[in-house]
Amino acid sequence: MNQIFQVQGMTCGHCERAVTQAVQSLDPAALVKIDRTAGQVEVESGQPREAIAQAIAEEGYTVAA
Amino acid sequence: MNQIFQVQGMTCGHCERAVTQAVQSLDPAALVKIDRTAGQVEVESGQPREAIAQAIAEEGYTVAA
Repeated sequence: MNQIFQVQGMTCGHCERAVTQAVQSLDPAALVKIDRTAGQVEVESGQPREAIAQAIAEEGYTVAA
Repeated sequence: MNQIFQVQGMTCGHCERAVTQAVQSLDPAALVKIDRTAGQVEVESGQPREAIAQAIAEEGYTVAA
C-alpha cells in the first residue's frame, strides 16, 4: 500500500537516507521513495500511516497532516 | 594549528557530521568546528591544508581556495 507524506526539512542526500532508515527501522521491508525538492516521501508498507509519520518526525523532520 | 576553510553545500547537521568525519578519518585527533550558516570549517590539525581540503571535497562539498 502506497502512502504519501509531505515532509519539511530534508535538505540533502543525508536527510533522504535518514528518513529512509527511520521508516525502515519501523518496517525493514518498506520501500521508500523520496522527492526531496517536492518534500514528498512515498512509502510502500503495511504499517499504519500514523506510525510511519511518527518515525519520520522523530528523526527531526516536520510531517504535514 | 588552526586552519579555516570556506565550504559550500553544508545544509544540515548530517552535513556537519559528514565533514567532521571526513577530516577525522584523515586525522583522528583533529578538532573540527563548523559554522554551517557561514559555510566556515575550522580545523585544528597538523595535517597539510591541501590534504584537509581534499578530504572535505571528496565528501561532496565545494571548498573555496
